[in-house]
Amino acid sequence: MSDYEMNALFRGNHSLLISNVVVDGRTVDISIDEKGMIASIGENERKEWKGEADFLIDGNGALALPGLVNTHTHAAMSLLRGYADDMILQDWLSQKIWPLEAHLTPKDVYWGTRLACNEMIRSGTTAFNDMYFIMDQAAKAVDQAGIRATLSYGFIDLANAEKREAECKATEQLAAHIRTLANPRIKFAVGPHSPYTCSPEGLKWCAEYAQAQKCGIHIHLSETEKEVNDCVAQYGRRPAAHVDECGILTPQTVAAHCCWLDEAECQLLGKRGVSAAHNPVSNMKLATNRAMPYPWLKAAGANVSLGTDGCSSNNNLDMFEEMKVAALLQKFYWNNPTILPAPEALAMATANGAKALGLPTGRLAAGTPADIILVSNRDACNVPIHNATSNLVYACNGYSVETTICNGRILMLDRGIPDEAEVLNEATEAAFKLVDRAKSA
Amino acid sequence: MSDYEMNALFRGNHSLLISNVVVDGRTVDISIDEKGMIASIGENERKEWKGEADFLIDGNGALALPGLVNTHTHAAMSLLRGYADDMILQDWLSQKIWPLEAHLTPKDVYWGTRLACNEMIRSGTTAFNDMYFIMDQAAKAVDQAGIRATLSYGFIDLANAEKREAECKATEQLAAHIRTLANPRIKFAVGPHSPYTCSPEGLKWCAEYAQAQKCGIHIHLSETEKEVNDCVAQYGRRPAAHVDECGILTPQTVAAHCCWLDEAECQLLGKRGVSAAHNPVSNMKLATNRAMPYPWLKAAGANVSLGTDGCSSNNNLDMFEEMKVAALLQKFYWNNPTILPAPEALAMATANGAKALGLPTGRLAAGTPADIILVSNRDACNVPIHNATSNLVYACNGYSVETTICNGRILMLDRGIPDEAEVLNEATEAAFKLVDRAKSA
Repeated sequence: MSDYEMNALFRGNHSLLISNVVVDGRTVDISIDEKGMIASIGENERKEWKGEADFLIDGNGALALPGLVNTHTHAAMSLLRGYADDMILQDWLSQKIWPLEAHLTPKDVYWGTRLACNEMIRSGTTAFNDMYFIMDQAAKAVDQAGIRATLSYGFIDLANAEKREAECKATEQLAAHIRTLANPRIKFAVGPHSPYTCSPEGLKWCAEYAQAQKCGIHIHLSETEKEVNDCVAQYGRRPAAHVDECGILTPQTVAAHCCWLDEAECQLLGKRGVSAAHNPVSNMKLATNRAMPYPWLKAAGANVSLGTDGCSSNNNLDMFEEMKVAALLQKFYWNNPTILPAPEALAMATANGAKALGLPTGRLAAGTPADIILVSNRDACNVPIHNATSNLVYACNGYSVETTICNGRILMLDRGIPDEAEVLNEATEAAFKLVDRAKSA
Repeated sequence: MSDYEMNALFRGNHSLLISNVVVDGRTVDISIDEKGMIASIGENERKEWKGEADFLIDGNGALALPGLVNTHTHAAMSLLRGYADDMILQDWLSQKIWPLEAHLTPKDVYWGTRLACNEMIRSGTTAFNDMYFIMDQAAKAVDQAGIRATLSYGFIDLANAEKREAECKATEQLAAHIRTLANPRIKFAVGPHSPYTCSPEGLKWCAEYAQAQKCGIHIHLSETEKEVNDCVAQYGRRPAAHVDECGILTPQTVAAHCCWLDEAECQLLGKRGVSAAHNPVSNMKLATNRAMPYPWLKAAGANVSLGTDGCSSNNNLDMFEEMKVAALLQKFYWNNPTILPAPEALAMATANGAKALGLPTGRLAAGTPADIILVSNRDACNVPIHNATSNLVYACNGYSVETTICNGRILMLDRGIPDEAEVLNEATEAAFKLVDRAKSA
């Protein structure tokens, strides 16, 4: 392929034919129209290339999957990867993370989010649910990287009326900014940080604003035991009941972590149609002492999706790894190897994730946007293929993804990402300068 | 590089200079002599290539590490990857694994072990501790693949004197076979399978034979609660005390799993100088309900190493993933995020692993064999590098390994393994034929 063709290919606005890929055990061709939609998925009967589309990608027997959906992260924290680990949560936050975050600039958030998007593209994630700050820069990064994101400003009022007013304003500004972008890949959500950092007034404002905007809500819920005990002491009810009282639990709400929910709270989440984002790696690394009660949430009919959390508590954004650790943690915690089998783990990372974010993706079907990843069938970890789903969840990791397509646009082809070197260089420079600023402050 | 040079390069028996790699934060050059030993590790001061060695590898800023050591696996089970998952242990073994294993041929063990070696080379493992059967074929595979292995025949007498005699003979035959190979990369160990599959007589024979042969012992110990209860019921003592009574616990012994050891048993392992191989992924996947008591073993001075277990209970051989899951599981299980910090996880996979197998590798130092891996510093998961050890354990996986060298011989260069395609094809064919034979039986 010539450089001219390569550039055209990555720019999008062309039709595509992906030939010779395996979907649910069948070898098929997938055709994608100029608008980035899957036009058809058909048996692979093509004998030769007949110019059916502007470009052809020979899948070479790769497994085709819907792009993975990461339903809880803080993308720009990729700059903090490995900056502090193996510490008690409170020390880690107060001595390491917050002092560094105090020096974050708009440019840092831009390059940190670009770095995160690059890692997601490489490991097969095409949509993510983000909560952080300086989110106009996150939006710019997502716009340029080419993937999907639902962006929320982390609303933290600490029961202070003045701060609450500022947070409401910041939330409204982000909503307005994303509206002006008019990018179909970028959505806005309201981001009340958690029941322990937001007052009931703040939570209620967020719930009402989300209803008025017809947008999603992204919140941390019941990550630690302390948070549950504090909530009961302060409000006389557990966190899920408390935030529900403030109107936060809706079918457009993604509640992250949910480790310490009791059975009644799981039933409440199910009843309200809430999506619970499981973050097993982060929960284990920070020692939350309890795994999300997946069996209870499943029984209650809640939608359970998957998230990596930010890079400072994971320390990567690999949703393949997250699928595996989710299956491992649930089996181990509930002492039952049949819990969270591979097909459920894969659904959490695809269809359930798309449902959580209200996206029409998460499955491969004609008429849906072409968010497609191709996973090598020639990597050592994916040989032999007795069961493709088992291999995807238990044997492969994100580096087995060869090609990533979002909304019909090719973002990675045969493991090549056009502007990766620039992103890695700029992000590295931003990360080191950030640490220097914090040290000399 | 020409094809001729490439071939020469992979054949070994040449000197090598690895320039511009990072070791413990310093950028260095590593020179390797014709015998495969590290000749020197020095500051990177070379301005241009002056023919200091037969070949030059430009490390390009990669992180150089000792090759990882996998201290518990069943390599040929790579053919069973994904064949059966998410099942109760006993059903999984009796309905799926054993019926398939009954049809394994020598050719299957050869290609299964080649497939495993290929995956290990790709993910930076240069030595492994294997227990299986038809082990002459495993030896042949290891010989050809170019990595190190300690091979044991899984001795299972089921308290049957006749079977015991056959197992002793099979063990002796493997010892003799490995002696005739005279390959410095291949060692023999005695492999009493476990206290629940071996009689006290069998265990005693194994201990005496190991002493006579001056070789290692490889055994499964206290993986499940049932095994502990059965041992106490049958012998009136817990498994570690029981096998110790039979002479099995020595400084050359690798005890795999060790989930259900109590504190006194940990002290016994420490006192005897035993190496305990932690297999966190397998233990979580099969829901052993208890994590290896790492803090107790550490306090007792036992050497704790790391293993992936076989591909049917993991389902890959990625020691990077194993390091991460070990750190995650220990933090979560003991409810303390400071337990098993990154440097200890890395030591488990390198120096401790080498110690477990009695190898002179596991660290980078002049005068030791050149078992070296280069980890990309340009992969998204390894950017930025605030802390290389943290990135290696928490952010990277085996696919970030670019180059793998064992005993001075290059096995993978810039992610290329010369005979990979053949290995993947042959192993795939062997795996599918195996399933067909089992189905038509």
